[in-house]
Amino acid sequence: MRIALGLEYDGAAFCGWQGQPSGCGVQDHLQRALSRFVDQPIEVTAAGRTDAGVHAIAQVVHFDSPVERDAYSWVRGTNTFLDERARVLWAAEVPGDFHARYGARSRTYRYLLIDAPIAPAVLRGRIGWHHRPLDADAMASAAKTLLGSHDFSAFRDAQCQAKSPVRDLMEARVARAGPIVTFTFRANAFLHHMIRNIVGSLVYVGDGRHPGPWIAELLEARDRRLAAPTFAPDGLYLAAVEYDPALNLPPFPPHPLVDSLP
Amino acid sequence: MRIALGLEYDGAAFCGWQGQPSGCGVQDHLQRALSRFVDQPIEVTAAGRTDAGVHAIAQVVHFDSPVERDAYSWVRGTNTFLDERARVLWAAEVPGDFHARYGARSRTYRYLLIDAPIAPAVLRGRIGWHHRPLDADAMASAAKTLLGSHDFSAFRDAQCQAKSPVRDLMEARVARAGPIVTFTFRANAFLHHMIRNIVGSLVYVGDGRHPGPWIAELLEARDRRLAAPTFAPDGLYLAAVEYDPALNLPPFPPHPLVDSLP
Repeated sequence: MRIALGLEYDGAAFCGWQGQPSGCGVQDHLQRALSRFVDQPIEVTAAGRTDAGVHAIAQVVHFDSPVERDAYSWVRGTNTFLDERARVLWAAEVPGDFHARYGARSRTYRYLLIDAPIAPAVLRGRIGWHHRPLDADAMASAAKTLLGSHDFSAFRDAQCQAKSPVRDLMEARVARAGPIVTFTFRANAFLHHMIRNIVGSLVYVGDGRHPGPWIAELLEARDRRLAAPTFAPDGLYLAAVEYDPALNLPPFPPHPLVDSLP
Repeated sequence: MRIALGLEYDGAAFCGWQGQPSGCGVQDHLQRALSRFVDQPIEVTAAGRTDAGVHAIAQVVHFDSPVERDAYSWVRGTNTFLDERARVLWAAEVPGDFHARYGARSRTYRYLLIDAPIAPAVLRGRIGWHHRPLDADAMASAAKTLLGSHDFSAFRDAQCQAKSPVRDLMEARVARAGPIVTFTFRANAFLHHMIRNIVGSLVYVGDGRHPGPWIAELLEARDRRLAAPTFAPDGLYLAAVEYDPALNLPPFPPHPLVDSLP
């Protein structure tokens, strides 16, 4: 039987989603916990392969289980053996052709950033930081120029292995809540480092280093060397993955930090 | 010259405020950073001696400096040598008789808690957790019965070294914002573990284990053994210290997590 799990994790505690020979990936940790729980090797596939330092509040994974357990047991049993900086939030039996990665219709990522003279201490590693004040409205307008289906080579990492640089950006919002600026991006899928590269360039607009139209110019030029450096992973969260509603996957509970922000 | 500093720190990264032979206290870290900056030994005194795991977003300390530096240099210079999970947010020269601890007119602590079936992953150590749903209104009403000047022996740790168990509780609020319940307490000073003991007992009211009037009964009985166990330090923040306004101490910037909550 095929099982889907909903997952939250602190990206600062792991070396990224992807399994590694050293076993430090979230995938490694989850596979070890599941394998201990069912006493058989389990391999999992995730909707989004988050980089080191990138968090998830709504990661979705699937695996095939040789044993039967009810949904509550998958949650409790797996969490018993899992590092406490990752938590299984729900479990559900899914059709045998469900695929966490290929079945995802869109992914939503959010970036949380504070603009303040001094870096955050309590939220260190959980929120991005820029030392100069940012104009959220200017960044919001500039972000909108990226909406739609485009060749995003301008914001694509040199290591990116995707066949095509074309992605369909369905949502690109920037909002402020007190000292926090949030960036929200939804697309069918994202290129490697695409969001961190976009955020880096938007920050150059927000702090006045470049005018708003620079973002559309970067997109048009398709030259990664013209855009800003890749922004830190600290404030980036995989915040939602959309599937066929007919699957009726369990909802994620509202996240105390990320979902309380506009 | 006497200098005051405003400090934020992640309590999960240190063994409490108080200096320790092993050097793991926030005080130890701050003294080492200041001493390196001015190249002379410096001893600091804090407004609130937070326990291990307890955070501060508005700790105030003072020390006497043998050298002169401007306010910005104290901030920059100290942060250069300080563990990044603690940050100096401001510095100011203060009168020679200013005392961070004895000059404080009141302290405000806030406790952040989520009630959810699964423990938090991203905010682990930064927010408290209760696995059963809590009635914030019931806790808010019960908390109000603690207001005023009382013998708080019911909520006093056996290790507490205060001469008197009487404290003046000027504010006792409980509010909900989505999945987060916040507790806000302001008093002239607090007994050891007083807030964590009050929060623990309020949670027993919030989840229905005891009726609201139980809190006033505990206060009246003055017997620590009757109250609930001490709640975890994870969600506790020293959130404000009040001094004579004539001192004109610099304000703390709004904290992205704590100050965005009701």
